[in-house]
Amino acid sequence: MKKTIIKNVGLYQDHVIKEHQNIEITDDRISGFPTDKDLLDRVYDETLDGHGMLATPGFVNTHNHIAMTVFRSYADDMNLMDWLQTKIWPAEDHLDSDVVYNQTMLGIAEMIRCGTTSFADMYFFMDDTARAVAESGIRACLSRGMTGITPSAETALKENRQLFLDWHKKGDGRITVMLGPHAPYTNTAAYLQRVVALAKELGAEIHTHLSETKGEVEECRKKYGKSPIAWFDELGLFDTGCLAAHCVWVDADDLDIMARKHVRVAHNPGSNLKLASGIAPIGKMLEKGITVGLGTDGASSNNNLDIMEEMHLAALIHKANTLDPLVIPAETAVNMLTEGGAKALGYTDIGRLETGYKADITLIDRSGLHWYPRNDQMSLLAYAANSFDVDTVLVNGKILLRNKEFTTIDIEKIKHEAERTKNKLFASL
Amino acid sequence: MKKTIIKNVGLYQDHVIKEHQNIEITDDRISGFPTDKDLLDRVYDETLDGHGMLATPGFVNTHNHIAMTVFRSYADDMNLMDWLQTKIWPAEDHLDSDVVYNQTMLGIAEMIRCGTTSFADMYFFMDDTARAVAESGIRACLSRGMTGITPSAETALKENRQLFLDWHKKGDGRITVMLGPHAPYTNTAAYLQRVVALAKELGAEIHTHLSETKGEVEECRKKYGKSPIAWFDELGLFDTGCLAAHCVWVDADDLDIMARKHVRVAHNPGSNLKLASGIAPIGKMLEKGITVGLGTDGASSNNNLDIMEEMHLAALIHKANTLDPLVIPAETAVNMLTEGGAKALGYTDIGRLETGYKADITLIDRSGLHWYPRNDQMSLLAYAANSFDVDTVLVNGKILLRNKEFTTIDIEKIKHEAERTKNKLFASL
Repeated sequence: MKKTIIKNVGLYQDHVIKEHQNIEITDDRISGFPTDKDLLDRVYDETLDGHGMLATPGFVNTHNHIAMTVFRSYADDMNLMDWLQTKIWPAEDHLDSDVVYNQTMLGIAEMIRCGTTSFADMYFFMDDTARAVAESGIRACLSRGMTGITPSAETALKENRQLFLDWHKKGDGRITVMLGPHAPYTNTAAYLQRVVALAKELGAEIHTHLSETKGEVEECRKKYGKSPIAWFDELGLFDTGCLAAHCVWVDADDLDIMARKHVRVAHNPGSNLKLASGIAPIGKMLEKGITVGLGTDGASSNNNLDIMEEMHLAALIHKANTLDPLVIPAETAVNMLTEGGAKALGYTDIGRLETGYKADITLIDRSGLHWYPRNDQMSLLAYAANSFDVDTVLVNGKILLRNKEFTTIDIEKIKHEAERTKNKLFASL
Repeated sequence: MKKTIIKNVGLYQDHVIKEHQNIEITDDRISGFPTDKDLLDRVYDETLDGHGMLATPGFVNTHNHIAMTVFRSYADDMNLMDWLQTKIWPAEDHLDSDVVYNQTMLGIAEMIRCGTTSFADMYFFMDDTARAVAESGIRACLSRGMTGITPSAETALKENRQLFLDWHKKGDGRITVMLGPHAPYTNTAAYLQRVVALAKELGAEIHTHLSETKGEVEECRKKYGKSPIAWFDELGLFDTGCLAAHCVWVDADDLDIMARKHVRVAHNPGSNLKLASGIAPIGKMLEKGITVGLGTDGASSNNNLDIMEEMHLAALIHKANTLDPLVIPAETAVNMLTEGGAKALGYTDIGRLETGYKADITLIDRSGLHWYPRNDQMSLLAYAANSFDVDTVLVNGKILLRNKEFTTIDIEKIKHEAERTKNKLFASL
């Protein structure tokens, strides 16, 4: 049994920030919030000085294609189909385990540096992604992207099933597995029904893209006479629990379905802006009690994995989009980054700093100039903070970042391997 | 005569990035780009190793109310008039030289840390702001905010005139002064005509807010039968040169006037989003050849002074707003941050890395994880970079930041004084 104490820290808990608190961790869970007097006669294996820091639940990145970090800034400022057809798809044909594993390590390191303690991912070569997650110490919810209309349809189903059997609840319980039907427009009803049957057989949840672009929704309505969300609902995709990325083009009926079927939303403001998809009606979703977390999407459409920047975007863009300065106030944005994200990924003991919850904790250094003068802390966190303020990151009670340095990851090796595998990939094109 | 060399650096010049370049500085100006061979027999007073770095023209923050840094995160998530009437205006009545000087020093330090080498400001107690600019080494274009409809109208005119006489072209030429008629809705035609007369007498340019909110434009049309831009044009506000902040609600006629009268725009995406003002049609402005720079606006409506974040916002939001992924490509965003901003402030020898130009230079550290793998550098700068990548800042040939540390500014003193003056201000309310 290992006991860790974080001393004298600002604590974000129950929607407020309290100063001068202590957080006690026993193995992988938070075991209490002792007073200074309690600490006099307790002994700890590890003591972290939280002076000046703010402790928040670890940040959750609810939507990523982490191996696509290899395509960061490889091809930008293009139309979506042009980008996919001339750049991404041809290059994806040349991916291998080596590229995926090393680019995943790069992405994981970047996410930890930004305070992220868990992420959801959908891609292929997911066994290699799972290996990187297991080794690095981060928490992840993985799925194999499945497109029923491509030649990989059968392989994908088989691989996602195997991924579940091999990795669900593995890696000290840090890995969970969902099924990843890619999107309505890359699938058929028959294939999606097989996905639903598999989900029910395994007890697996679904991670998908839904209603990302206006074109997707129009095409779906033309083809099936209903919205992507109504179609997925009809096919049973929401029956075992569903994490839906984007949900930009949703109407009132869609929102009703999402609320009723507890569809959880991965909101990716950076990607939605950059790809010119649009701006999701997040204010309305929250009003209806729909769970919303934040995601970066892949680095190829962002182009970083900085989830604090997504929080900042989420706190800003909806105000202008609705012309309402009161929509998504500071604490709502911070909550989406933490508790909302954890709920979106289906976690029941992550996303809050509470006794019995997993010790996924981010400590934020508040010594930067942009944290002065000392006015409202929640507002500073939502509107002024920068991911380079992240000082310390714990996942499952284990310290992965301390004093802004990685404790378990060899950064120079990661950069070298990222560069080597990128060069190898592009040389093969 | 002092000679400085920046060796072996990536150079952003003529819209592209070239690696392994050298930049020679003589006193306050760039004096050439010697080859490695040239360097063999030259001697320098100071050598900066640019290995791995990217040199860009110093970033320009085209719109700020820097003393309002005291109000950073003091009051957020409120309606504009509520915020002004219950929070900002009552507190502004208690400002003094001490508060303004020290909060200005805080804001200047934050801006330098973010790579900013010059900024435009409009507020009051501008003599204290000028003093902070002179001492700190940054470059600034200052104006006294003038509201014709308030009791300070006469004082403001007198103070802006005196500011021009005392500070224009002072501080080693780093300070320029404009006249600052606040906005259409806080002024009268008669008062604005006096401002125009003063501008013509002094040969001074104008810095103002224009067409920031939908309500402002509607009210102006009701009152004067024309848009704020048409009204200002008619009154002669554009005749001596004009820097106009926001320009969110502008129609085709307004854009024609702006192009014809060379109105230069300070685009403040963060503030426009946060205050729910809307999204300015920047793509259309650039198409018409209108000069656009980026601004943070005051920290009270942002809530930081991170101009790289504004670049990132500008590169993203217009794509979603127009549903066009090709609008504001990476290099356009970088150009607004540098050359566009310098032109907006009326500088003719700043904003490019060219022989004879002022040595206002920002060096960006590219060792961060988010700069890997090494794909397109311009795209990485626009979409992936973070202001904490800024390593070195020179203004007028003088090094203000080196290895991410301030060389001339005492940061702990600045934080202490910012806190002291904030407490003093709020204690007096």
